[in-house]
Amino acid sequence: MNEIIEKITSGNRRAVSRAISLVEDELPVASELLSGLHQHAGKAYRIGITGPPGAGKSTITNQLTKIFVSQNKKVGIIAVDPTSPFSGGALLGDRVRMTDVGILPGVFIRSMATRGSLGGLSKKAIDAADILDAAGFDIIIFETVGVGQSELDVAKTADTTMVVLVPESGDAVQAMKAGLMEIADFFVLNKSDRPGSESAYMSLKTILSIKFRNPEDWVPPIVKSVAQENKGIDDIYKEILSHREFLFTGDRLRLKREDNFRTRIKVIVEDSLRRELWNHQREEKLNNSLNSVVLGDISPYTLSAEIINSYKKSFNL
Amino acid sequence: MNEIIEKITSGNRRAVSRAISLVEDELPVASELLSGLHQHAGKAYRIGITGPPGAGKSTITNQLTKIFVSQNKKVGIIAVDPTSPFSGGALLGDRVRMTDVGILPGVFIRSMATRGSLGGLSKKAIDAADILDAAGFDIIIFETVGVGQSELDVAKTADTTMVVLVPESGDAVQAMKAGLMEIADFFVLNKSDRPGSESAYMSLKTILSIKFRNPEDWVPPIVKSVAQENKGIDDIYKEILSHREFLFTGDRLRLKREDNFRTRIKVIVEDSLRRELWNHQREEKLNNSLNSVVLGDISPYTLSAEIINSYKKSFNL
Repeated sequence: MNEIIEKITSGNRRAVSRAISLVEDELPVASELLSGLHQHAGKAYRIGITGPPGAGKSTITNQLTKIFVSQNKKVGIIAVDPTSPFSGGALLGDRVRMTDVGILPGVFIRSMATRGSLGGLSKKAIDAADILDAAGFDIIIFETVGVGQSELDVAKTADTTMVVLVPESGDAVQAMKAGLMEIADFFVLNKSDRPGSESAYMSLKTILSIKFRNPEDWVPPIVKSVAQENKGIDDIYKEILSHREFLFTGDRLRLKREDNFRTRIKVIVEDSLRRELWNHQREEKLNNSLNSVVLGDISPYTLSAEIINSYKKSFNL
Repeated sequence: MNEIIEKITSGNRRAVSRAISLVEDELPVASELLSGLHQHAGKAYRIGITGPPGAGKSTITNQLTKIFVSQNKKVGIIAVDPTSPFSGGALLGDRVRMTDVGILPGVFIRSMATRGSLGGLSKKAIDAADILDAAGFDIIIFETVGVGQSELDVAKTADTTMVVLVPESGDAVQAMKAGLMEIADFFVLNKSDRPGSESAYMSLKTILSIKFRNPEDWVPPIVKSVAQENKGIDDIYKEILSHREFLFTGDRLRLKREDNFRTRIKVIVEDSLRRELWNHQREEKLNNSLNSVVLGDISPYTLSAEIINSYKKSFNL
């Protein structure tokens, strides 16, 4: 264990890769490893990039990475892709473009896809970020698709989160519905050379001005870009710095990170207990009783109470 | 308890309303009530209508309800609205239109909004459906916004679920990303008089033909409609009947309902245990340790293990 921790903290890429694989495979040794790495983590700045498919997140990730690299920063990119195996490769031609920055020195890219529960995916992505953090990466970028709870969870653990939208009507409303308003530190209105861009900008601005009335709050700014043509990337970069400065004022960063750890520890605790709860015996009891529930002989609440009792008794040694 | 059960099962609307409020307020008596009602439920046919905001779900719900009422069916509508109080009323002018069917005889409408966790909302909506079911409603319609896990959960407990899309480009891909492909028994391409409708239809058709290759599977059909002009509503209605016929062949309905109860019982069990897990004492321990976690003195995994131990010990009487 000490050997792999030493390799990771000295920035050995192979060790980093292997450690992330341990996390992905949910091996018990992974939590021991993460515990050992924890004291070495906490120095990286974590950036979340989220938004609907096709908004241009990969292109922005790509361009931002080039800026960071030009300043001798080491950048770790975690691309979270909660798609089914069916849709995976075919739709995401974007991923291909990333290889372009993947060969730059000091850049590490890892794409993590769903192999099980979605909840599990966000947990794994955050664990992977800790590994990169301990390995000395200065910047960690989470790129997520942003349609489900899982991506929101990942975005919540970033220090600065940008939500990338496109001018198509309804996007602002969609973003609000999907909970993106709550997690955005700023918005990027990408493909802003398209028709309807100005009215999309205005409607987003209006919604934000209603939502954020408190003058002491951080009001998420809106940055326009055409990432494909490398337009507006500098503005995005400046916005990251300016939000970072805001966080470094007073206690804000510490409070934000405490909040992130609170969510994360709850997930770790609940996942672990859930695995013990739904052991073979209780899964079987549930499955064997479902027909009686459908027939009306036993209610879901009565069956639930029986399962809860059996679980609690298992700790009564 | 017996008195309110009797009132509900005899179709007393005030008793139904009050029972749903008990569920919404998470009163302990609610699970006892639901247990008592369970043997009276299971006869209603449950229809889920989901899709992105603005797709026309309320209009379709409205028109379908009129058809059911014209056949002397009693219809219960549960509109699930997982929006923040901020966005709630302002954006959903749709809801207003629903009052139009709300005054028809035998129609009961209940709008349920988030007051707490999203997960809690889907559980409450499903409990409300059981109450309507026990009260003798023939048809229960869940209308959900369909951007998060919560709405997917509700849709999963329906017997027939339709996903309403509009021709705007990207919707089919969005639907796939958001997991709507997995829950759709059929698709409604609403506003199909808009430009781009034919190509949206074709791209959805292509995606479905790749996804559903097994000839024994139900391949979700696509119905075109212009709900505002009452066009295509009969086709939607026929599609519901045809999927219902499919479910009534062999064991399919029973298996689907068993599956729904499996998910639901897991939610009931986990919610109940989670409430005990995060009691005041353990919440406080977590909050008081967060600073040490941020400083690197204790790892999230070590702290999680301590909390898990304290929880397990609490059952060791």
